[in-house]
Amino acid sequence: MNLILDMIDISTPVILLNDTDARQIGVLEGDRVTITRIKTKHTIAAPVSITKTLTSQGTATISLGTNENLAAEKGDEIEIRAAPRPASIAFIRKKMDGGKFTREETATIISDMSSNVLSPSEITAYITAAYINGLDMDEVEFLTREMVASGEQITFSKKPVVDKHSIGGVPGNKITLLVVPVIAASGLLIPKTSSRAITGAGGTADLMEALAPVAFSAAEIKTMTEKAGGVIVWGGATNIAPADDMIVTYEYPLKIDARGQMLASIMAKKMAVGSDTCVIDIPIGPGTKIPDEAEGRVLANELITLGNRLGIRVECAVTFGGSPIGRNIGVNLEVSEALSLLEGKRGANSLVQKSVAIAGIALEMTGKTGADSGAEAAYDIIKKGKALKKMLDIIEIQGGDPKVKSTDFPVGEHTFVVPAASDGYVVSVKNQALISIARAAGSPVDHGAGLHLHKKPGEYVKRGEPLLTIYAERGWRLTRAIEEARTSYPVLVEGMLLERISSNR
Amino acid sequence: MNLILDMIDISTPVILLNDTDARQIGVLEGDRVTITRIKTKHTIAAPVSITKTLTSQGTATISLGTNENLAAEKGDEIEIRAAPRPASIAFIRKKMDGGKFTREETATIISDMSSNVLSPSEITAYITAAYINGLDMDEVEFLTREMVASGEQITFSKKPVVDKHSIGGVPGNKITLLVVPVIAASGLLIPKTSSRAITGAGGTADLMEALAPVAFSAAEIKTMTEKAGGVIVWGGATNIAPADDMIVTYEYPLKIDARGQMLASIMAKKMAVGSDTCVIDIPIGPGTKIPDEAEGRVLANELITLGNRLGIRVECAVTFGGSPIGRNIGVNLEVSEALSLLEGKRGANSLVQKSVAIAGIALEMTGKTGADSGAEAAYDIIKKGKALKKMLDIIEIQGGDPKVKSTDFPVGEHTFVVPAASDGYVVSVKNQALISIARAAGSPVDHGAGLHLHKKPGEYVKRGEPLLTIYAERGWRLTRAIEEARTSYPVLVEGMLLERISSNR
Repeated sequence: MNLILDMIDISTPVILLNDTDARQIGVLEGDRVTITRIKTKHTIAAPVSITKTLTSQGTATISLGTNENLAAEKGDEIEIRAAPRPASIAFIRKKMDGGKFTREETATIISDMSSNVLSPSEITAYITAAYINGLDMDEVEFLTREMVASGEQITFSKKPVVDKHSIGGVPGNKITLLVVPVIAASGLLIPKTSSRAITGAGGTADLMEALAPVAFSAAEIKTMTEKAGGVIVWGGATNIAPADDMIVTYEYPLKIDARGQMLASIMAKKMAVGSDTCVIDIPIGPGTKIPDEAEGRVLANELITLGNRLGIRVECAVTFGGSPIGRNIGVNLEVSEALSLLEGKRGANSLVQKSVAIAGIALEMTGKTGADSGAEAAYDIIKKGKALKKMLDIIEIQGGDPKVKSTDFPVGEHTFVVPAASDGYVVSVKNQALISIARAAGSPVDHGAGLHLHKKPGEYVKRGEPLLTIYAERGWRLTRAIEEARTSYPVLVEGMLLERISSNR
Repeated sequence: MNLILDMIDISTPVILLNDTDARQIGVLEGDRVTITRIKTKHTIAAPVSITKTLTSQGTATISLGTNENLAAEKGDEIEIRAAPRPASIAFIRKKMDGGKFTREETATIISDMSSNVLSPSEITAYITAAYINGLDMDEVEFLTREMVASGEQITFSKKPVVDKHSIGGVPGNKITLLVVPVIAASGLLIPKTSSRAITGAGGTADLMEALAPVAFSAAEIKTMTEKAGGVIVWGGATNIAPADDMIVTYEYPLKIDARGQMLASIMAKKMAVGSDTCVIDIPIGPGTKIPDEAEGRVLANELITLGNRLGIRVECAVTFGGSPIGRNIGVNLEVSEALSLLEGKRGANSLVQKSVAIAGIALEMTGKTGADSGAEAAYDIIKKGKALKKMLDIIEIQGGDPKVKSTDFPVGEHTFVVPAASDGYVVSVKNQALISIARAAGSPVDHGAGLHLHKKPGEYVKRGEPLLTIYAERGWRLTRAIEEARTSYPVLVEGMLLERISSNR
């Protein structure tokens, strides 16, 4: 059937047909049609959405997303024919029914997803089915390889190429800003791609952006890494494993974090940047993604197995994730804290210890140091100022100011001190509550927003002494953050009264 | 954050935000925001879609679907704030993790679905999770009751109110056109809602539409049924159990037909029209939805159990569904075949037998006849012309021509006869192949399109005698149908050569 083309300003792949025309063509909501532009004979396929009112009879409306592949113009004559469903849908059905994906099926699904052949609903069905029925190690390997193949890849002639990763969930985790320069300063390559905050108060890419630009192409990442030894860039700006970014986007609204998907997601990014040696930090404890050490070991083994299959040596460090790394949360606060440690100033012990432990494993794996001496060597690189020098090189090569200092990062002028309500030892802090306060204060959008934790678990506090200070760039943000702090009890002091229940209740 | 409103011509609930604005508001793709129209202070929620190019900074674009609840105008000032996720999403996650829905959770999901709070992807996640992890009888009962509550309901003061249903999958199934007038002629009420063809060659609503209008409101269905004893209308035109229609629409692209969903879907339509007595036809055999008798019995028990919980007496008839009911497939061909039997003409035995068997069960259940005499009584109603008279009453009350005859339905002028390639008994016919041929010929859109089956299983045919005749209204449609018939071998004759493989291949 021939129709006149109209266009609509959305990116989702779709063609809107009037219900009478759709009936004539013989298609229902969610079916596929082929669209042929008469003038050029160019043909593409798109999922159908049917409307009684939004598109009139004789007209077909396609999204700008669909037109990317058709390159037609409004008013063009097009021919619409019913088309078969993409093969991916049968494979997704197979997973729904408990089946196992082959390599070819995985390739077809990832390719249909990347080229806008699958509708958002169909991608969600894939994600839901893979979450419920799971992926075994073969399927995870297929998925990883296909995600790598979906985008650009970097190959370095010099080896080894190191990478690091943290499973996440711990606020204030700025160790990448220390680990990368330590490893690069030791003569190894580390092309580190990082993410922005999704639900946290600041991702590594958000922090690095306060120091230098973070959006680069794969080719630029390669050149910069070869020159400076390392980079810290935003993975989302590259075309590295784009299918992974897509899946993560579709998982987000459902708060799914399927294990197989997570394994593939981590390793695809490492494989695509040409890494052969990888250290992975697995924080455990309440409020993190991994509840206990046993589960941490299971995950570690899975990552190591997957790495073996892909030709990447993996070592994992199970770490304590029950309280923040360092004392600062929020972009400028964290950057300042990391830089001040590189500058040799005294600071948060947990931040230094964790950074040199992770960097040390990489030094040992690559033979830069002997067994059990990696952490010491890493600490030495920091103490001698080599890590600071290297970090400034990295900042410079990414286009930032190489003269930057830890004191250059202003905090918001609106502040509030939360005092201790009683004397006692701090028994625990709530990661999630601290993140919520920092976000309410404006993190990560407002660089000066965040909080400083005066007391951490095990430290003694007297009634009225500060537990934490909140910083915000805007007054109303501070008000919201204070409300959040008042209701969430982020820092628990031994013997503190949480709720008072009267007898006449 | 205050933005200027723009609008887009789609129905899907969505608000498009520029990525910079979204970051400022603190939302990601798939999050929710509240939208407040400053002028009226009216507030609604919508799922966010983020774009770099389609919506510029300072502007928010909502769909017409979203604006249905906001009633704002282009250019209005609106305030956008991050909003929590709907509770339904946590319940869907619970089902993904193998949990069981409570009545309240089911109610929330169905309500969020009906009021456009859930996005298409979220509805798909619900359907996928319910399909994979299943619904037990409690959950199916909750779902049925909530689907009934999602729309209008009919209550009759006179009892009993009969209904019939077929699980479907068999071509040429026009028995509703005989069963409804028989039951109504016996003095019972039967407010029958039917569907249009989804993947078939013609649904009952498509057939009835050749005789009279089929789109009516719930109130009209009630009035007409009280007057004429019965109606045959299109369920999709009513507001009866609309949530069920929505779920079916979302299941279709994935070719899912989840058992729990199917049970709820069938019984919700019956309960909503006030039925207390229901006969359900379960066709079994190759090409139907139910492969064998054992599975048919399981389904029958589930339908009876669910009926009991809802206060509806259910009996099921497991029938042979391996070949078409009657000999005609296609709108006019089927209507003509059904009317001619009501007119007392000789015709397809399978159609009469099945119709009186199903109608007879209803007569026995309601005490209109004794045990084992229902079918005979039903046949008697047809033979005495009472069913024809009642059918003409029903056609008249729905606005059709009460003088209509079985000879008033022209077939397409483009015809082709498929001859037998050899002598022998017909051993089987392929339902799916017959449907494909009829659809290729133009069914159900072209009323004159379809096919007539000259020989059915067990009948003897001589080489060159007609097996089936194809009818089409348009030449190119006939060509397509012939191609379909040539490649699909719809009628198998004993000893027929299916493929010839030569030695020099």
